[in-house]
Amino acid sequence: MRQLYHYWFCPFSRKIRFSLLEKVLECELVLELPWKRRTDFLILNPAGNVPVLKEENGLVISGTHAVSEYLEEEYNKPNFLGSTPAIRSEVRRLTDWFDLKFNQEVTEIVINEKVMKKYLKRGNTDASFIRFASQNIKHHLQYIEYLTDRRNWLAGDEFSYADISAASHLSCVDYFGDVPWERFSKARDWYARIKSRPSMQIILKDNIAGLIPASHYRDPDF
Amino acid sequence: MRQLYHYWFCPFSRKIRFSLLEKVLECELVLELPWKRRTDFLILNPAGNVPVLKEENGLVISGTHAVSEYLEEEYNKPNFLGSTPAIRSEVRRLTDWFDLKFNQEVTEIVINEKVMKKYLKRGNTDASFIRFASQNIKHHLQYIEYLTDRRNWLAGDEFSYADISAASHLSCVDYFGDVPWERFSKARDWYARIKSRPSMQIILKDNIAGLIPASHYRDPDF
Repeated sequence: MRQLYHYWFCPFSRKIRFSLLEKVLECELVLELPWKRRTDFLILNPAGNVPVLKEENGLVISGTHAVSEYLEEEYNKPNFLGSTPAIRSEVRRLTDWFDLKFNQEVTEIVINEKVMKKYLKRGNTDASFIRFASQNIKHHLQYIEYLTDRRNWLAGDEFSYADISAASHLSCVDYFGDVPWERFSKARDWYARIKSRPSMQIILKDNIAGLIPASHYRDPDF
Repeated sequence: MRQLYHYWFCPFSRKIRFSLLEKVLECELVLELPWKRRTDFLILNPAGNVPVLKEENGLVISGTHAVSEYLEEEYNKPNFLGSTPAIRSEVRRLTDWFDLKFNQEVTEIVINEKVMKKYLKRGNTDASFIRFASQNIKHHLQYIEYLTDRRNWLAGDEFSYADISAASHLSCVDYFGDVPWERFSKARDWYARIKSRPSMQIILKDNIAGLIPASHYRDPDF
């Protein structure tokens, strides 16, 4: 069967999982802890990061960019990139917004402080980093409100990788209750629509040993 | 005419310029200094970074990922992604290797220390960062040697975005003479083939006021 090497709090793995579930492509999840630098995994992907998708025919695709483009090329119903050059460019621009900018300014900081340092005891947590991420996330939520005020989904009329990517990052941060939804009701409405999708419900039901999610984490009416 | 908003030492802008030249797509270069956060430019691309491609029909495409995929979809002769899922995945994996990993471990550090801090006087240069990048680059040159020992170009038989991306990053760093070519002769042979391409010769001929490149920077026989 198709296999996805993933890690629970890797937003890029979540993005691919979300996409596979939406496309109804069956897949076995293989938990990979990238910091272990397991030799057999480094042979699959020398960069040592997740996600890595292994198809039943043996084809190995490494990295969120390569996997998402591959899924669109090979299994494009439903299509999450759009059909015109303008829409595809907008979807890719926004996907990068979340995968690069949001990741650097929010996700990476929260996961590093709350999972790597606190849970895995790799250094001391630093409250100033968390405060920095808390400031940054407000601008991103404002941007989501700006977009959804003008469009049905983030990149236009259709649900796309822009929504998949944004929701994947936000859900990782929301696990720890670090998204100030109460001050951004339109962003919350958009995320409620995402949460009510059966695909996202599956992802949000993950039980991660030793880490209890925020009380509203799984609830579509939050 | 088509316009490319770029910055001289942005490896992602170089990558798109390199691709446009290889595809013989005419383009006017517009110099954009991203740190100025010019309002008119932020309207084009709210993320505020280069490259941004503006087509004659008004279509705006922001970000190296969106632009490179767009160019392959719209102008795919020559094709720099390959034609099979396996090759395309390998090209995208290696493109990300350089755009994410090499960038973080080498390019970003060198450009920050040598352009942002030293030339633009934004803080004090820190020799330990340069030493860190000098250590990191060796592993990447070794990886280029490993790949070119087994393949004609980095991702396989054909010249691809993997080569374009790797060469774009290396050429930014090589401007300052920070690539230890003498210890990596096979990587040098690969880069000599890149440098001898008419497209790359155009890029290497840029004159950047106030910054003299390393003596071997433009020479294909170095």
